[in-house]
Amino acid sequence: MVLFRRFLGDVLRDARMQRGLTLREVSAGARVSLGYISEIERGQKEASSELLASLCAALDMPLSDVLREVSHLVAVEEAAAALTRIPVAARARQVVNSAA
Amino acid sequence: MVLFRRFLGDVLRDARMQRGLTLREVSAGARVSLGYISEIERGQKEASSELLASLCAALDMPLSDVLREVSHLVAVEEAAAALTRIPVAARARQVVNSAA
Repeated sequence: MVLFRRFLGDVLRDARMQRGLTLREVSAGARVSLGYISEIERGQKEASSELLASLCAALDMPLSDVLREVSHLVAVEEAAAALTRIPVAARARQVVNSAA
Repeated sequence: MVLFRRFLGDVLRDARMQRGLTLREVSAGARVSLGYISEIERGQKEASSELLASLCAALDMPLSDVLREVSHLVAVEEAAAALTRIPVAARARQVVNSAA
């Protein structure tokens, strides 16, 4: 099962790191406890829509950008999951055909 | 404040309507109460990641597609909000400049 919060956490953490911000700084900016943000980044807690908006503001990143990046990561995960559902012989034929 | 659940609700309802499904059918498919799905579609309740995955499965729509559509709607909302923050005189100049 592809879980939204897992990929949302990855995107929020990456965005924070890219901006050189600490959990403490984002916590102060978004007025959310440091522990809660940490759990969201690890995909362990759901973020309410209000909290997500506050985090985006603290990171100075539009919500639409966050969601687009999450969508990309989820699409890669879905493609990988679909690939593992193809029987090995069929997958081998695909490789052979694409190489031909 | 741009709220994720509002746009998620719009996308989920549109997807259900496009497929000609009733709330009752999605409710049975996703094993979620009809009332709860209705509240999610109206943007009144947050959907957990597990529930969102179940709804996507019931709608036969990849989560990545749902999130991409939500991202588009949010981007339009963000652009509209940014436009209203530009003072009227500056906006008029933009219109004149873009017409020149």
